[in-house]
Amino acid sequence: MTLARPLDETAAIAASPSPAAASATPPHVVVVGAGFAGLEVAQGLREAPVRLTIIDRHNYNLFQPLLYQVATAALSPADVAVPIRSLMRHRNAHVMLDEVVGVDRAARSVSTAAGKRIGYDYLVLAIGSLYDYFGHDDWATLAPAPKTIDDALAIRRRVLLAFEKADAAADEAERDALLTFVLVGAGATGVEMAGALAELARATLARDFRRIDPASARILLVEAGPRVLASFPEKLGAYALRTLQALGVEVATATRIESIDEEGVIAGGKRIAARTVIWCAGVKAGPAAAWLDIEPARHGKVSVEADLTLPGHPEIFVLGDAAAVKGSGGKDLPGLAAVAQQEGRYAARVIAARASGKSERAAFSYRDKGTLATIGRSAAVADLPHAKLTGTVAWLFWGLVHIFFLIGFRNRAAVLLNWLWAWLTYGRGARLITGEEREIGRASPDHTAVNR
Amino acid sequence: MTLARPLDETAAIAASPSPAAASATPPHVVVVGAGFAGLEVAQGLREAPVRLTIIDRHNYNLFQPLLYQVATAALSPADVAVPIRSLMRHRNAHVMLDEVVGVDRAARSVSTAAGKRIGYDYLVLAIGSLYDYFGHDDWATLAPAPKTIDDALAIRRRVLLAFEKADAAADEAERDALLTFVLVGAGATGVEMAGALAELARATLARDFRRIDPASARILLVEAGPRVLASFPEKLGAYALRTLQALGVEVATATRIESIDEEGVIAGGKRIAARTVIWCAGVKAGPAAAWLDIEPARHGKVSVEADLTLPGHPEIFVLGDAAAVKGSGGKDLPGLAAVAQQEGRYAARVIAARASGKSERAAFSYRDKGTLATIGRSAAVADLPHAKLTGTVAWLFWGLVHIFFLIGFRNRAAVLLNWLWAWLTYGRGARLITGEEREIGRASPDHTAVNR
Repeated sequence: MTLARPLDETAAIAASPSPAAASATPPHVVVVGAGFAGLEVAQGLREAPVRLTIIDRHNYNLFQPLLYQVATAALSPADVAVPIRSLMRHRNAHVMLDEVVGVDRAARSVSTAAGKRIGYDYLVLAIGSLYDYFGHDDWATLAPAPKTIDDALAIRRRVLLAFEKADAAADEAERDALLTFVLVGAGATGVEMAGALAELARATLARDFRRIDPASARILLVEAGPRVLASFPEKLGAYALRTLQALGVEVATATRIESIDEEGVIAGGKRIAARTVIWCAGVKAGPAAAWLDIEPARHGKVSVEADLTLPGHPEIFVLGDAAAVKGSGGKDLPGLAAVAQQEGRYAARVIAARASGKSERAAFSYRDKGTLATIGRSAAVADLPHAKLTGTVAWLFWGLVHIFFLIGFRNRAAVLLNWLWAWLTYGRGARLITGEEREIGRASPDHTAVNR
Repeated sequence: MTLARPLDETAAIAASPSPAAASATPPHVVVVGAGFAGLEVAQGLREAPVRLTIIDRHNYNLFQPLLYQVATAALSPADVAVPIRSLMRHRNAHVMLDEVVGVDRAARSVSTAAGKRIGYDYLVLAIGSLYDYFGHDDWATLAPAPKTIDDALAIRRRVLLAFEKADAAADEAERDALLTFVLVGAGATGVEMAGALAELARATLARDFRRIDPASARILLVEAGPRVLASFPEKLGAYALRTLQALGVEVATATRIESIDEEGVIAGGKRIAARTVIWCAGVKAGPAAAWLDIEPARHGKVSVEADLTLPGHPEIFVLGDAAAVKGSGGKDLPGLAAVAQQEGRYAARVIAARASGKSERAAFSYRDKGTLATIGRSAAVADLPHAKLTGTVAWLFWGLVHIFFLIGFRNRAAVLLNWLWAWLTYGRGARLITGEEREIGRASPDHTAVNR
């Protein structure tokens, strides 16, 4: 077996002594996280005189905005994910499947879970966010959140199994609890998930069971704040609420989740028996602040300068959901793909300029092109700079934009195929119960004789 | 919440006292297993005057012949699986996600893992086969076999992780072991898997790594018998061997696997360091013989009468891989989809006739339409009644037949899309490392400083 590049040669390439110095060895840029921001940095540095290392815990870039469709059996994981290596074939890039566990600012190196230490001239932390259980970390296993592909598949398994178990259950209270789905948080993810679940129950599964009526499933969207889609204009939030209610989703605003256990939830002082709880509430930044040993800003983010670098460290960029970046109104920019992508493109430009010995001083500014959320068939909201759209127009626009932003022909074609098929047949292409937690043997607590 | 059919009503419907009697209650047909045979039985009884219950451990029907493409990242699970419920919407069918654990022949009932007892008038056991580790059950975790979707995903994870770990490994011997893949058994599955793995390494991954050359991966196909594709004519086996060798697969026939451990295998007296071992060797029937409390035939199968029923039990059918059915040459029919499907159609016809009070006496006879196996791009073998084909013609024929036999428009279109894209780009649409066993923290045993 031969090595494409002998190890001792690569080991000899160390971080350059000074990032600004135009030394013989091109500067080493380490990008942690290959999400929307990290990918833009890497793509933007394709032709730049740098060596690039991309480190990610997963071997794929995930198109998060459609992950809820994996959780609700409409799409397959491979439709919304692309192998990072297939996107990083340019000669100056090196991809590592590993997990960063710390940063040594003084030594200019990151350390990884596999025990490696990697020196950098520029460090880009684009590690995204995690779901925040507000101090109740024990809720994470009881109420999974759609963050990774494995999370989405776990949610899909639980949702589909709940209908199967309900069909097998002899006890009526147990059946009702199995057919009750509680979603926590009515932001875009919660609204999209609630709409998709309602359509799954009312349309896709409607004719598939004999002993239960899936259409009677109770879908409860619980929100602590005063309204749904709080980040959208009130008119669009009101439309989303009406549309969800028309789909049979019960929406409880100004209602706080007080506890979650295996039997269900306590929300607004009332116990609700529910076997499936899905967490779509707040997020917090990944552990960048802890790695950098600094005081985190709101939601665990890292406060950065106008050029997205850490104060006093022009060689460290923090981007995307992990960074607290002030927008034009003085508020932090939201955790959107568009924000992360624009930050990534900006950081690539700054690094490329500096690596070429130029100075790049223009501050980052976010150009808001609008935000979108879909509720169901022919129903979406679009908050655009010059228009607020709802209904079929917004829905078609949402679909076009998502197809456009997907990476690669295969995924675009696959998503389009699945959507067309679902639109024509109300079917869901990925209604598979897979994974270890199948639990058939514990399908229901009754051990009675049944003769159909 | 309302029930489509109240429970107490269904509980009142018991097995009819005598299957032949044209009683007011239509006879209850219980089909265990929704594979190729079980599905044909259920579909064939659509219009028959029977009540139908289909029990399967999974919620999907799996198109086994293409499962190796899931294991090698070419297809997604949802492309080769269809929800059983979506195929069983006719009014007389009831689907149960459960696992049968026993049969009471005298009481005419089956018992399930969920503790249910289900009475039957006709019982169809179409439970398929399991991989046989020839008494070494401890090898199952060391060398997974592509039988279920979860198996295929585990193999995909191991294969893709092996390349990732090899890229990260500092030790040369470790790297070589990570880039060595041993496949046990050179029947159709082993040959197809070896060819797909070779193409994955030589074409798909070739440009994706910097520190290893994936094309240098060693793929070793080990077969205890004297040649590859033993069930095909010698000429076709010889073609498959040449094609595999041209793809860089090392084929070792007349070589027995003596042991498997975490370091690799001992085969033909020699130790081979390999971190990935895939089991494609013999199969044995599922536990139908044990449930029926009878002496199993060869490979754990159940010997049946000419009408595919258990001797002395005209109400119990055993079909597909679980049944020992003599072919025209006196040998057992092979474990092929076509055999299972024809047996399923036959059993449905017999049951429908008997349920209508007619007697159906024609013995089952298998009509051999040929067998196919693919080795790689433009390379397959087709053993047809009147022709032995190889090369591009056989490959196109193989593709057409498999698209045709897939169930449903969506899966046909999805597989076609993935194949076309792979053919054009050499890409694989499902190169995702997912699941619990990610083990990044243990990506390599070295804990050294690396500066790229």
